[in-house]
Amino acid sequence: MNGMGTNRLEAFSDGVIAVIITIMVLELKVPRDTTLASLRALAPQFLSYLLSFLVVAIMWVNHHHLLHSARRADPRLLWSNNTLLFWMSLVPFVTAFMGNNCWDARAVALYGVVLALCSLSFALLRSAIIRHHPDDGDLVRYHRGVQSKNLFSMLLYIASVPLAFVDVRISFFIFVFVALSYFIPERKLAESTPASPHES
Amino acid sequence: MNGMGTNRLEAFSDGVIAVIITIMVLELKVPRDTTLASLRALAPQFLSYLLSFLVVAIMWVNHHHLLHSARRADPRLLWSNNTLLFWMSLVPFVTAFMGNNCWDARAVALYGVVLALCSLSFALLRSAIIRHHPDDGDLVRYHRGVQSKNLFSMLLYIASVPLAFVDVRISFFIFVFVALSYFIPERKLAESTPASPHES
Amino acid sequence: MNGMGTNRLEAFSDGVIAVIITIMVLELKVPRDTTLASLRALAPQFLSYLLSFLVVAIMWVNHHHLLHSARRADPRLLWSNNTLLFWMSLVPFVTAFMGNNCWDARAVALYGVVLALCSLSFALLRSAIIRHHPDDGDLVRYHRGVQSKNLFSMLLYIASVPLAFVDVRISFFIFVFVALSYFIPERKLAESTPASPHES
Amino acid sequence: MNGMGTNRLEAFSDGVIAVIITIMVLELKVPRDTTLASLRALAPQFLSYLLSFLVVAIMWVNHHHLLHSARRADPRLLWSNNTLLFWMSLVPFVTAFMGNNCWDARAVALYGVVLALCSLSFALLRSAIIRHHPDDGDLVRYHRGVQSKNLFSMLLYIASVPLAFVDVRISFFIFVFVALSYFIPERKLAESTPASPHES
Repeated sequence: MNGMGTNRLEAFSDGVIAVIITIMVLELKVPRDTTLASLRALAPQFLSYLLSFLVVAIMWVNHHHLLHSARRADPRLLWSNNTLLFWMSLVPFVTAFMGNNCWDARAVALYGVVLALCSLSFALLRSAIIRHHPDDGDLVRYHRGVQSKNLFSMLLYIASVPLAFVDVRISFFIFVFVALSYFIPERKLAESTPASPHES
Repeated sequence: MNGMGTNRLEAFSDGVIAVIITIMVLELKVPRDTTLASLRALAPQFLSYLLSFLVVAIMWVNHHHLLHSARRADPRLLWSNNTLLFWMSLVPFVTAFMGNNCWDARAVALYGVVLALCSLSFALLRSAIIRHHPDDGDLVRYHRGVQSKNLFSMLLYIASVPLAFVDVRISFFIFVFVALSYFIPERKLAESTPASPHES
Repeated sequence: MNGMGTNRLEAFSDGVIAVIITIMVLELKVPRDTTLASLRALAPQFLSYLLSFLVVAIMWVNHHHLLHSARRADPRLLWSNNTLLFWMSLVPFVTAFMGNNCWDARAVALYGVVLALCSLSFALLRSAIIRHHPDDGDLVRYHRGVQSKNLFSMLLYIASVPLAFVDVRISFFIFVFVALSYFIPERKLAESTPASPHES
Repeated sequence: MNGMGTNRLEAFSDGVIAVIITIMVLELKVPRDTTLASLRALAPQFLSYLLSFLVVAIMWVNHHHLLHSARRADPRLLWSNNTLLFWMSLVPFVTAFMGNNCWDARAVALYGVVLALCSLSFALLRSAIIRHHPDDGDLVRYHRGVQSKNLFSMLLYIASVPLAFVDVRISFFIFVFVALSYFIPERKLAESTPASPHES
């Protein structure tokens, strides 16, 4: 597996993510009539579609940003990337599951589980990339800063699972909050993040 | 988000648009028999497919043309692009909705809403790109000329929404008219467009 | 529309063709049981899938070969390419229509119509590209040779439409014959093709 | 067909494989309710999805690795590649077939047949590429080593077909075993593989 350029890894990941983000719309069931009631019944599906589009778009941006620092497509990088793509590929499924079942607590909890696993895969991918730069202290420090933010998102996603059974709106708020937190440019955030235990 | 090349942004957008334009055909329900009646019943679906293929193909051409002037993938560019892709991703849904419901007024109006939102996103994307060129008067003047045309299309799409309830053929005519207007090469049009208020 | 490189045109076309060739498999209805009868009932669908995969794969190879000679993505090239992609995008539909209806004469005839329109679009695309080379006699002569073959395939596809009502096996034989004829390397064929009227 | 770069062949294959690996998730039927029984009923589908994602991801890695040695896209390479893509495109179908029918023996056997045909296509593709290097003894020796492993996987897949009728768990074990064997880096394996008859 030596000799695989990161370019092709990026191109393949882009292809998979482009398909993921687009096929979700196929799960928006087209109503057979045009009554307002039929359209209103689509609201929970549309909301979960909108949320997932935002989440996957952010993952795409982060993925690009992350692979930018990759030096080579070694097996560790390759398979943490494939693991990430696997969990991301389940987003259309849980999106439809949540939408079709009107944001039922169990469906929202499952959505949280999949997002938490995506976050975990991102963290593993970042670890694989940090190992490519044993000598570049600045870059490692930067990535460890983002890693902290990544792990914090993962903890929030994990919390969203039991909280869905309290009130699905809490979980929904967590999903939106984590998404919006990624609009703060990462470098600035990395500077203001308190040093993680690993950094000392 | 610094460091994202516009190349990868283009490649990802191309992937998403390629999937959008192609999965629309999955909404053409394959008849279970081959009677002429079954095929004739497909006519409204086929017409909406043809229209949407044309519309998305034009959007792809314009998108390419527009990104050609982008200097860097800054957050503003990135997220106006993602907004555009989101509204474009709904085109297969409204295409099927309009086709399955035989061009019912409400379905046509919703189609107009989605195209208007695509136009608005294009205008926002163009604004983001104009900001990359504070010093290049010619390019800015060119893009502002196209912007006027863009905003005019958006107004027509907005008008198509209430007009669908008068007669869906008016809205259909608007959709086709706007599409055909894009076959006039843009540079020539930009030269002949009266200066917009912003240009003075 | 000046300034569009042919590279991006190729990349977009590749994306669309990759999706077309792959989503056809979604029309192979997965049987709910595993009796031999259920699998046998899939035979006509599988045969039409196999045929269409071959046809689209050949179109992809020819498309690549053809765009290799394109100098610039002018509007004429761009829109003959989009026309080709439109007719190709209907291949999954007619494939499923033919498969689901057990190669009924009307379905086979419609399949022939779509392939004939793909052939016509290829001929228009080739004309657009020949115009890029007013001075290169050898290249023009080569493309005109392939053009003759292209037009001959189109005539065969047109003939397959009425012949389907005589016996669908004749049309099937035509589809397979045209496909196999493309395995003969094109340059050799171009050399052995009698000069077309346009060449003289 | 001379003049086709291997780059575009790779890009097209990547596109097809990206769509294949992603559309499989569309076959995971979204339950209409959120009872544990509904989710539990998904288990066989989820397991077959997970297995196929792993299998296709490994095929993608191997495909990249293999095409790395290709010199030119000659017809032999092109069509062995298209043959491979054809059999790979059936993976989503057999995955859904196996999942929907709860790993019934016939469905598992068909899955084995398709994987065996993918393996065979890989072997043909590798033969086509070995011919590009008549003079490079080291590279040929390396590819022949991997070829032995490839053929051994194919034999195991062939064996999985009748063994599915004994106990589907044996076939499942074979699928997983072959997949895991590809995590051993190929170069090392090639060195430790006993010389094949062709190598002498």
